[in-house]
Amino acid sequence: MTMDLTFLGTGSAYPAPHRGASALVLRTEGECWLFDCGEGTQTQIMKSQLRAGRITKVFISHLHGDHLFGLPGLLCTVSLNTNPSLSESLPCVDIYGPRGLRHFLRVTLGLTGSQLLFPYAVHELEPTPDQSPPEGQLSLEMTAEHGPLHPQERPGRTISLDASTDCYHLLEDKRFVVKAFRLYHRIPSFGFSIQEHDRPGRLNTALLRELGLKPGPLYGRLKAGESVTLESGRMVSSSEVLEAAIPGRKVCILGDCSSVTGEGPLRMCNKADILVHEATLGDEHHEKAVEHGHSTPKMAAAVARACCARRLVLYHFSQRYKPCALRKEGDEDDITELRIQAEDALQGSGIEVTLAEDFLTLPIPLKRSQ
Amino acid sequence: MTMDLTFLGTGSAYPAPHRGASALVLRTEGECWLFDCGEGTQTQIMKSQLRAGRITKVFISHLHGDHLFGLPGLLCTVSLNTNPSLSESLPCVDIYGPRGLRHFLRVTLGLTGSQLLFPYAVHELEPTPDQSPPEGQLSLEMTAEHGPLHPQERPGRTISLDASTDCYHLLEDKRFVVKAFRLYHRIPSFGFSIQEHDRPGRLNTALLRELGLKPGPLYGRLKAGESVTLESGRMVSSSEVLEAAIPGRKVCILGDCSSVTGEGPLRMCNKADILVHEATLGDEHHEKAVEHGHSTPKMAAAVARACCARRLVLYHFSQRYKPCALRKEGDEDDITELRIQAEDALQGSGIEVTLAEDFLTLPIPLKRSQ
Repeated sequence: MTMDLTFLGTGSAYPAPHRGASALVLRTEGECWLFDCGEGTQTQIMKSQLRAGRITKVFISHLHGDHLFGLPGLLCTVSLNTNPSLSESLPCVDIYGPRGLRHFLRVTLGLTGSQLLFPYAVHELEPTPDQSPPEGQLSLEMTAEHGPLHPQERPGRTISLDASTDCYHLLEDKRFVVKAFRLYHRIPSFGFSIQEHDRPGRLNTALLRELGLKPGPLYGRLKAGESVTLESGRMVSSSEVLEAAIPGRKVCILGDCSSVTGEGPLRMCNKADILVHEATLGDEHHEKAVEHGHSTPKMAAAVARACCARRLVLYHFSQRYKPCALRKEGDEDDITELRIQAEDALQGSGIEVTLAEDFLTLPIPLKRSQ
Repeated sequence: MTMDLTFLGTGSAYPAPHRGASALVLRTEGECWLFDCGEGTQTQIMKSQLRAGRITKVFISHLHGDHLFGLPGLLCTVSLNTNPSLSESLPCVDIYGPRGLRHFLRVTLGLTGSQLLFPYAVHELEPTPDQSPPEGQLSLEMTAEHGPLHPQERPGRTISLDASTDCYHLLEDKRFVVKAFRLYHRIPSFGFSIQEHDRPGRLNTALLRELGLKPGPLYGRLKAGESVTLESGRMVSSSEVLEAAIPGRKVCILGDCSSVTGEGPLRMCNKADILVHEATLGDEHHEKAVEHGHSTPKMAAAVARACCARRLVLYHFSQRYKPCALRKEGDEDDITELRIQAEDALQGSGIEVTLAEDFLTLPIPLKRSQ
């Protein structure tokens, strides 16, 4: 199964012509999962090879505008470009994010008279008080949903922290388990862990031939983990003829943060193939970064090292950092410095560092048997 | 006083890479008034010569997302780029638009924890039932404002239709009178008339010299409309020595519509120097245009002719029409056809037709004495 990650916006605070506001897409066999949706995301999608109509799930890390203001418009445009004759059969778009998101969408879509051709549901994550300073927490009054559901809205779940694992169980399908974990920011922020299921190893066909088994339905049953009995009466168990399982890939995407909250983040991100972490400002601006709830490359590197990630991808750069290709001689704020800072902090770890740019697509190759 | 109009987005329905969502700016001596604010407007401003920090007033024609979804982000970005030390002295940004706009901003800014460094006020226009079909009207329940004002929100006015003039009185300052009028669309929509005050004509200096009056404070009093008494005892009235008044310029900007509602629109737009009217689809799609509450060039031309406008500017084009410069051989949907259709309908009227494009700036020159 092919899998890749495309960055649509790698800037912080607001969308700029040279760097969009936060949004990235995890694509697997044509299905797209969108992580954050800053203003202008729909236009960034139009400029990319992705198709907005393929978005089946949306994950919002936190409610700051530069991660959210593009969502109502994106939903409207997807609907406008949908064939009305298909509307009866369109699946529900599942949207995950902090408490308050349901009210946000109901009001923005409702007041603008936006009808959608597909249903949607908002599944809200209940933050805990240790994710932000008190002034960053939304009162229950502010997030209370007044009035009826939007006509295309389906009831969503309210998901609380599972204290035993220190994470939020968002979903499990036949390919992935998705969990969220807590981050510390000016307002409650979350990270997401997308863990692919392990796949059975390859059949040892040489051994199977030796046992007199020819390719056919029995191969499938062995591959699926069953045992089969040969004509000779000998029982062959799956484990005898299957090579080691191919471990599933793991992608972890963290929202804005100056630190993690609880044990969940490091546990959920353990051995991530790709850890996407913000680095809003360079290490020399450490104090300012933390004051605004943000990280520097060194801080991101520390998280990557603590969870033994394989690759650290930095994004969410202050708009002061221009993309390399647009940097002119004499310009201050060299973005490549951010990579060097993270690499310095990761010396000897073997963890690779990548700077994301708008429209960078990272393939996530299948792993080999262990 | 210099005055110009810059189109930031001329597309309908959604922002596309080649045509932004609705937004235009009327600029007078550095002050900017923004009309509509579709998603991506702040990025379009960054690409233009305009400065978002100069926006002192915002006018929203109707609550569809392609005219509104950029507003919360624009306000946040202006605030981010404001010097905090100035925040005490910043003037209030006045925002005018249909009922529901206040709730929209309070919820979008509130749930995203968006603090602004400047105050803002939303002045709501009360629509009438004949501006849209019943299903396009927002219930009082949907627009009811729950909870307290946003910390930077100042109480705004609620403006009802003045039945005697069939218009809404928005504001009058020493340069302009701004009124709104009703349009018919799928949801209530408004147009805006910006009428500059007439200026006194030039002083007839030859005559003044003849009367023995030398340049000095008396010139100023005559120019201001006063009468003065000469040493000889002769009284000179302002009207004797002033040439004819220079009529103020008039710019009228109409939101989405398939027709006007009431008498106000033609009255307010009478002899407009510039009439900005939507033309979403070509005349050959008349039925579809009207079904969606929109106009064709012929319909826009009929309004321009009825109100004796001097120049008709078409905008809000379906995204099927690419800008001329991007049109390839063999492409259907030629945007220049829209201009031709309007020109055909205006034959003999002397009304000039202009197709707006993103980043087109139209100077509005001072008039001469009549």
